[in-house]
Amino acid sequence: MVLREFAAPLTHGGDLGAARKLFPGAPEPFIDLSTGINPFSYPLPRLEPAAFVRLPEPGAVDRLGAVAAAAYRAPSATHVVAAPGVQILLPMVAALVRPGRAAVLGPTYEEHVRAAALAGHAVREVAHLSDLAGVDLAMVVNPNNPDGRLAGRADLLALADALAPGLLVVDEAFMEATPGDASLAADVSRANVVVLRSFGKFFGLAGLRLGFALAHQDHAARLAAALGPWAVSGPALAIGAAALADADWIAATRVRLAAAARRLDDLLAAAGLERTGGTALFRLVRTSAARAVFERLGHAGIFVRGFADQPTWLRFGLPGDEPAWQRLAAALS
Amino acid sequence: MVLREFAAPLTHGGDLGAARKLFPGAPEPFIDLSTGINPFSYPLPRLEPAAFVRLPEPGAVDRLGAVAAAAYRAPSATHVVAAPGVQILLPMVAALVRPGRAAVLGPTYEEHVRAAALAGHAVREVAHLSDLAGVDLAMVVNPNNPDGRLAGRADLLALADALAPGLLVVDEAFMEATPGDASLAADVSRANVVVLRSFGKFFGLAGLRLGFALAHQDHAARLAAALGPWAVSGPALAIGAAALADADWIAATRVRLAAAARRLDDLLAAAGLERTGGTALFRLVRTSAARAVFERLGHAGIFVRGFADQPTWLRFGLPGDEPAWQRLAAALS
Repeated sequence: MVLREFAAPLTHGGDLGAARKLFPGAPEPFIDLSTGINPFSYPLPRLEPAAFVRLPEPGAVDRLGAVAAAAYRAPSATHVVAAPGVQILLPMVAALVRPGRAAVLGPTYEEHVRAAALAGHAVREVAHLSDLAGVDLAMVVNPNNPDGRLAGRADLLALADALAPGLLVVDEAFMEATPGDASLAADVSRANVVVLRSFGKFFGLAGLRLGFALAHQDHAARLAAALGPWAVSGPALAIGAAALADADWIAATRVRLAAAARRLDDLLAAAGLERTGGTALFRLVRTSAARAVFERLGHAGIFVRGFADQPTWLRFGLPGDEPAWQRLAAALS
Repeated sequence: MVLREFAAPLTHGGDLGAARKLFPGAPEPFIDLSTGINPFSYPLPRLEPAAFVRLPEPGAVDRLGAVAAAAYRAPSATHVVAAPGVQILLPMVAALVRPGRAAVLGPTYEEHVRAAALAGHAVREVAHLSDLAGVDLAMVVNPNNPDGRLAGRADLLALADALAPGLLVVDEAFMEATPGDASLAADVSRANVVVLRSFGKFFGLAGLRLGFALAHQDHAARLAAALGPWAVSGPALAIGAAALADADWIAATRVRLAAAARRLDDLLAAAGLERTGGTALFRLVRTSAARAVFERLGHAGIFVRGFADQPTWLRFGLPGDEPAWQRLAAALS
């Protein structure tokens, strides 16, 4: 990989340090609604010191892969590659294809364009699924962030057929919280389909750094070789294996997130902010008052996500407790 | 990066699962002396749940970079890139140079050859520092693993001059435990010197996954772009910043490791195994009985490191407590 020129640093949610600089007089604790991370985190188990002390063992990596394959319904553990977050995988996945033409269905999570450029591709953003046909590398975030647009499995598989041997990469970072069955996780025995699954968003453990690529064995082996041994920390191996096997927690959390998202819709609607998209982990509103609402909330100690190139958009994550709901309601009223 | 064909998986220390398969009747607990990881780990602080829950903030990354720059004596925090372990950085560092001729001073840690090949270089292993002149990418592990060979700073800087614009990468994974001042950490404002520092070995927290590249700002920016945001976990940011700032613990640990290494030398010598190299974190012996000693120790529940391509070598890590010392002494006598 010869790194090409890279874009300036991108802006992401979750930076309360930046929020406190923007709104220095705001009441604390700051409420962070700027991400799409589940506020009802998976309960942290007691970790053995060995998880921090010892090099992660290959056997533990294999066990996590098996649990993840079952949880995501991938064809087998040999189709699963665990990484310290999906983010670090993006340039490696883009490099599975020789530098050529890449297209990203957008507007979406901006790191996909940057990663494809890093891997040497000429990248453009396109507006419709059908515009992805004919490229060497096609990236779809499904459901999309931030607008929640959901492509169906049949449409994506037809696109993969049309693209072959071009590669279709589907970032399913928010799929766990999405009803229905649009996931391509079961289809990655196809040579030109790669699925990315984030652990930290649905399980509310973004600081742990854990994510997965689901891919044909040849791709999986190349990604594992690029990551090298010990890519995933001992704590992530232990917590990831426990959480992904906890079907009861997963099912209950889907219900809980859906209820919280409905409550957020009602609260936004009551404030005259109608939802135009989103997933159960975040809601997108479009309003000409976006800038004013962003600032009003910020001065009230509530940080939401604005978008530099979409000045009418605001994305709201889910409040995590009753005081946060009350403060959001008060600030919006 | 178009990944080239990669080597078969390499064998590394620390895999007690493999040890238990090799020696199924061995007494437990197995004693792992197969790595060069400090058995006297940095005391784990109480971690805030937020370290696991929230996305790591840019401010925390900046703070860790500043602490690491001071601890390693790098020119500034802008010369520091934190990663989830040095291992994942190796192909990225090798890719700072366009594919060309690479050479690794060996025999050494085998992942350097593999990483350079992954980055598209034609790689060979050479036996002498002077053999590295003239290549596009030169890799030196200093002090070397497993033989402890130490190159002096002046010789390395002369090599860097001779190599320019070729890149000299110095892996200082075991430098903290090494007396003297052979480190090139203070010299990375040079455009063609990159230093790699492992956190987990000296601090005994290999499962945490934390390591650093120290490099010219241009290289540092490219590595940071390849890693992307949130490369380092919340626990690693918190523990790394505390440990690297703890000068008292670092100084005391150097003394403690040196004493343990001398005790290990005495014990090995008493068993007729003379040390032929090593660092304060591991000792290398050369003996025609290497295979027999490996098996005798294995059956006694003590796992040391053999080398497939060096059948007379055995590497011993440090026992971590008195029972381990006693069992090692008994098994060797």
